Amino acid sequence: MGPVVAVVGGGQLARMMAEPAGALQIHLRALVEAADGAAAQVIPDAPVGAAGDLEAVAAVAAGADVLTFEHEHVPQDLLTRLIADGVNVQPGPGALRHAQDKIVMRTRLTELGVPCPRWAAVATPEELTSFGDRVGWPVIAKVPVGGYDGKGVLVVHDAAEAAHWFETDHGQILVEERVAFRRELAALVARRPSGQVATWPVVETIQANGVCAEVIAPAPDLPVHVAEDALDIARTIADGLDVTGVLAVEMFEAADGVLLVNELAMRPHNSGHFSLDGSVTSQFEQHLRAVLDLPLGDTSATAPWSVMVNLLGSELADPASAYPDLMAAFPDAKVHLYGKSVRPGRKLGHVTVTGTDLAEVRRRARAATTILGGTPA
Amino acid sequence: MGPVVAVVGGGQLARMMAEPAGALQIHLRALVEAADGAAAQVIPDAPVGAAGDLEAVAAVAAGADVLTFEHEHVPQDLLTRLIADGVNVQPGPGALRHAQDKIVMRTRLTELGVPCPRWAAVATPEELTSFGDRVGWPVIAKVPVGGYDGKGVLVVHDAAEAAHWFETDHGQILVEERVAFRRELAALVARRPSGQVATWPVVETIQANGVCAEVIAPAPDLPVHVAEDALDIARTIADGLDVTGVLAVEMFEAADGVLLVNELAMRPHNSGHFSLDGSVTSQFEQHLRAVLDLPLGDTSATAPWSVMVNLLGSELADPASAYPDLMAAFPDAKVHLYGKSVRPGRKLGHVTVTGTDLAEVRRRARAATTILGGTPA
Repeated sequence: MGPVVAVVGGGQLARMMAEPAGALQIHLRALVEAADGAAAQVIPDAPVGAAGDLEAVAAVAAGADVLTFEHEHVPQDLLTRLIADGVNVQPGPGALRHAQDKIVMRTRLTELGVPCPRWAAVATPEELTSFGDRVGWPVIAKVPVGGYDGKGVLVVHDAAEAAHWFETDHGQILVEERVAFRRELAALVARRPSGQVATWPVVETIQANGVCAEVIAPAPDLPVHVAEDALDIARTIADGLDVTGVLAVEMFEAADGVLLVNELAMRPHNSGHFSLDGSVTSQFEQHLRAVLDLPLGDTSATAPWSVMVNLLGSELADPASAYPDLMAAFPDAKVHLYGKSVRPGRKLGHVTVTGTDLAEVRRRARAATTILGGTPA
Repeated sequence: MGPVVAVVGGGQLARMMAEPAGALQIHLRALVEAADGAAAQVIPDAPVGAAGDLEAVAAVAAGADVLTFEHEHVPQDLLTRLIADGVNVQPGPGALRHAQDKIVMRTRLTELGVPCPRWAAVATPEELTSFGDRVGWPVIAKVPVGGYDGKGVLVVHDAAEAAHWFETDHGQILVEERVAFRRELAALVARRPSGQVATWPVVETIQANGVCAEVIAPAPDLPVHVAEDALDIARTIADGLDVTGVLAVEMFEAADGVLLVNELAMRPHNSGHFSLDGSVTSQFEQHLRAVLDLPLGDTSATAPWSVMVNLLGSELADPASAYPDLMAAFPDAKVHLYGKSVRPGRKLGHVTVTGTDLAEVRRRARAATTILGGTPA
């Protein structure tokens, strides 16, 4: 009864898909890295297997209405073979490659006329030097495949600082100008195979050490025309790349109000976690609806402001042990823990607070998260 | 990591506890009637066993921080033995017996001064006749133990109509005056072992054939003093009976504004399903917090009106097959299906719509549910 969605990946994103799946009687089947991981703790049908193992992915997709992802690490050739065997893969490999390879992404966005930082694909230190001399130092160097959350990204003041990357097997390196940005924004959209697109309000994302630390929805004091530009860019990318499911477009808002696209993610994304508690339809429900080609849900906000703060590491062996303090001090805080063991800086969970006074909402969300991190209320 | 809650029962109430359990990293373990039932579909740790089987209940409670329930069918002696063995049972058997036996409930509520319909416990047709002659015919006769959703309840115009109950093994029958009520209300509260109580706004419940069909939150046009009376009654019962977890108090609002208590449920209840989509803290999250003696969550509404409509049976073999129609017509409808096979009149799910215009919210919630029932949009 009900549709069957197979998802590759057993982390917090698959875990959070389980909530709307249960409500909508969608059978969720996750291919997980470990039997006791974040997703497997809450999904009964969670076989263990690797995202690169054709047999394992084919088995999880067997009988499912659609195969989708919580990360971008499923190889293209594997997806192509599954499609040849009749599997409905959403987003398809043609879209997904833009989230797998940053050079492919930059090339295609430039073709689409989407504003990006100046960039180049360089194969040698000399080419890097030439790029830096042209756009100004320092520049941002990125491993095109496999980086995330600040990993695989370097601020490079001199080609020598990236020399080790050229010595290893990365092939080309993506280099980008360092944008003098005012702040970072994210535009979240969902798109169905049949073309319907839904957007959430543009959010402000605040990073710490290359990792998302806080999200404010909607982005404060964002001029309406800039918000519209951001959503237009996201729609252009979703349509142009034939993205299905949720697409997060991370952007820089430059000092002069110009938007430049930073990164893409084709799956529910940290910048949309607020929607679990602050939107009529969360990004997790919307992703399931979109990949099943079901009509998309209402993305209206349920409160004027939502602030989400990530729990990045904790002094506590078990952050849930702080519930008595946290819940007494902040009865309105919506706590999400992912069932992961504590490691320094690890994304262990998040807290969302909603309300009408942004300063107070931010203060409460941060303070509640601090308690989970081990600081008493 | 995180607390462990064991719940007896594998229906939709345990199923809906899984959502907040996942968010709060609470390990939920359910003792279920069937391995493919509503709860077992979404809870990985769901051993099969009977609520009356001491060994099975003891096994599910082993190592759990608390044992709780989604129904009232665990025998008193079983619970007493578990407590003797050190199990933390919430609500305890001393509270739960008032939800298990309607005569015990009426006796205790009367002692507490809680307004009830006039009632008597009768053992013979002659006693029933005497009661009916005193309060006026027809009267309501109830099997004191085991009835639910209209089962075990009769409107009796003459003692002969209940004669078969006296012939079977029911012992005493509860008889109550038939109240000329204006409408039915429910007051939902949660209480921790340490005494904290939280209440939601009083709701109006609309029954069809003895089964809850629709809930409007808050109850429209309810005078403030009547709402306060209703919540006072619910608090009095929660405190007086030492209830822990969620308590639903179903009441009649008599034509003259007087409230009379009809039924009690000591668990999440159909009258509180709206809170999943219409409250900061749902009754399911609150129940988990309460039985774990954690500080209770904010019960504020997230919208002026929430209307929940039950899906009672369906012409469709799979109600989820109506999603394309339903979601296209009502993108704001929050659909909950319970993973149950279709039977006439069976509670298969519910739909909640929230908004600012009550008439429109009701229309949308009803129309969306109708589509799940098999009527095209």
